Amino acid sequence: MTNEFATLSDFRALLAGAALADADMFAAASEHNMQLTKPPGALGQLEDLALWYRSWRGGDNAEIAAPQVIVFAGNHGVAARGVSAFPAEVTAQMVMNFQHGGAAINQIARVNGATLDVVALDLDQPTQDFTQGPAMSENEFVAALQAGWQAVDATADLLVVGEMGIANTTSAAALACALLGGAASDWTGRGTGVDDAGLSVKTQVVAEGVALHGGQGDGLETLRRLGGRELAAMAGAMVRARCLRIPVILDGFICCAAALCLAKTQEGALDHAVAGHQSAEGGHARLLEALGKAPLLHLGLRLGEASGAALAIGVLKGAMACHASMATFAQAGVSDS
Amino acid sequence: MTNEFATLSDFRALLAGAALADADMFAAASEHNMQLTKPPGALGQLEDLALWYRSWRGGDNAEIAAPQVIVFAGNHGVAARGVSAFPAEVTAQMVMNFQHGGAAINQIARVNGATLDVVALDLDQPTQDFTQGPAMSENEFVAALQAGWQAVDATADLLVVGEMGIANTTSAAALACALLGGAASDWTGRGTGVDDAGLSVKTQVVAEGVALHGGQGDGLETLRRLGGRELAAMAGAMVRARCLRIPVILDGFICCAAALCLAKTQEGALDHAVAGHQSAEGGHARLLEALGKAPLLHLGLRLGEASGAALAIGVLKGAMACHASMATFAQAGVSDS
Repeated sequence: MTNEFATLSDFRALLAGAALADADMFAAASEHNMQLTKPPGALGQLEDLALWYRSWRGGDNAEIAAPQVIVFAGNHGVAARGVSAFPAEVTAQMVMNFQHGGAAINQIARVNGATLDVVALDLDQPTQDFTQGPAMSENEFVAALQAGWQAVDATADLLVVGEMGIANTTSAAALACALLGGAASDWTGRGTGVDDAGLSVKTQVVAEGVALHGGQGDGLETLRRLGGRELAAMAGAMVRARCLRIPVILDGFICCAAALCLAKTQEGALDHAVAGHQSAEGGHARLLEALGKAPLLHLGLRLGEASGAALAIGVLKGAMACHASMATFAQAGVSDS
Repeated sequence: MTNEFATLSDFRALLAGAALADADMFAAASEHNMQLTKPPGALGQLEDLALWYRSWRGGDNAEIAAPQVIVFAGNHGVAARGVSAFPAEVTAQMVMNFQHGGAAINQIARVNGATLDVVALDLDQPTQDFTQGPAMSENEFVAALQAGWQAVDATADLLVVGEMGIANTTSAAALACALLGGAASDWTGRGTGVDDAGLSVKTQVVAEGVALHGGQGDGLETLRRLGGRELAAMAGAMVRARCLRIPVILDGFICCAAALCLAKTQEGALDHAVAGHQSAEGGHARLLEALGKAPLLHLGLRLGEASGAALAIGVLKGAMACHASMATFAQAGVSDS
């Protein structure tokens, strides 16, 4: 595939010019919804989801048949600072696990009928330690955005993006803190399970990163400075999905930190996305609130790798199956009051 | 199928003697869970669900392959009092809709790979108006329990029970009020969408029923007096599932009111069950609290017909797919710390 953008400035233009929801389609879907054989509103959030989905996918009123899950993996220079309970080698080991079908996301994608693509991003070249300078050069950042952009299957009808990267909750905490304010400790959690000493180091690393890079530019520039390749790739994939009118389910803290960088750059950049779940990672609830997204699931997951969002595919499939395939009162001969 | 019980007293004995969870299997499943390629606890409630499921299903550690959904339908004498926004004929019309595949539960069961059985219970013979006397004679009650018992497929590996019955939130509110106390208005909601005048009548009917039948016996006797055929059938199916060690997902307010009658009769009667969702019907949250069950989903559904519980099948499938099919740290060559 040829790149549809070559520079960060081209990418900004794509982000600014991406598709909008179709208000006419929303109205048509609302009208259809009121004729289905159930009391008005009785399917709760499933009805809202169906109307939102149709306002992005258009008029075919079809069930969800081709969801795509993409897991992006990257390594982080700050891992060397001891911010994680796991060594950096685990990123590559887990990529092998994804490729061999042994991880949680393999099982959850399979039972939800989704394809799973795994994209490893220069794992032998960690980003720079962001306490020393920007995590990525502009060229590295654009390459990661392109990798995300290109990974999206244009024939998918739903996209879930997730990540694997030892130390990437540190990166996500720094992004949230830099873009939303507050203290480093407000956003820094235990990730995969760091102990008290590790949490203290991690909080310090986040504070140093925010001190160095906070206020140095917009969401995308902050993503370049404090993010990682897998976070940039998720952002690239989300923008591509919007250009293709493919609805997106957001995963946990790290995915939402990448999404935040888009939302802070362009108003409405996440209108084509819903929040799949609320993670047990402490900062995620506040991050979702800042994004204005109510999570579909609250099951205490904190695994990343798109697991919570992929579980939410089932909710969206149920919503669209009801919307697309239920009988109307007239068709079924049911009294509507 | 021959009936495995002929009298209410036989049914009580089956309820008292039903299977228990297997503590050894729970311990073995916990040990297995700790070896899977994820940080400890990172799958949150999915891990708890998997251990609970295995403690009921035993040692085969298999994914969920054969979920069964059963919708029981019944008619209620109190419907004539004007407690519902819909006329009583809608019960039979919706049974036809279920049979023709047009209802929400048809779509949700299908996308979750579940079979759907619909059992209509003497729709042309509504129960007696419970403000005038017991809803069912003992013979009628036993027949409804038997219908539920017999509807369970012994080869299923997961059971969801739900209901359809115009006026059955009135019955459920009366059961909850009689067994848990409080005012009729605490438990009486709008059901399918009754208006203010209807809500006032409905609350009065609940209060009359509770005044006549409250404190006249245990949970099962209260179910006979204030319940309905579809509620009794759900109770019968739940007890059968326990005897067969088939885990159950509870649906909304009406299903949980039937479950409450079992729990009030026999301690631990619902240990093989989880709550699928929290309904928008006001009393359901309090009812779940009384049952000690935290709901898996909070999506504002209030449709009944097993819809919320069937949606939660996907969560349980995801939990068991991870537990049964993920690689261990040793298998995947992933560092575990």
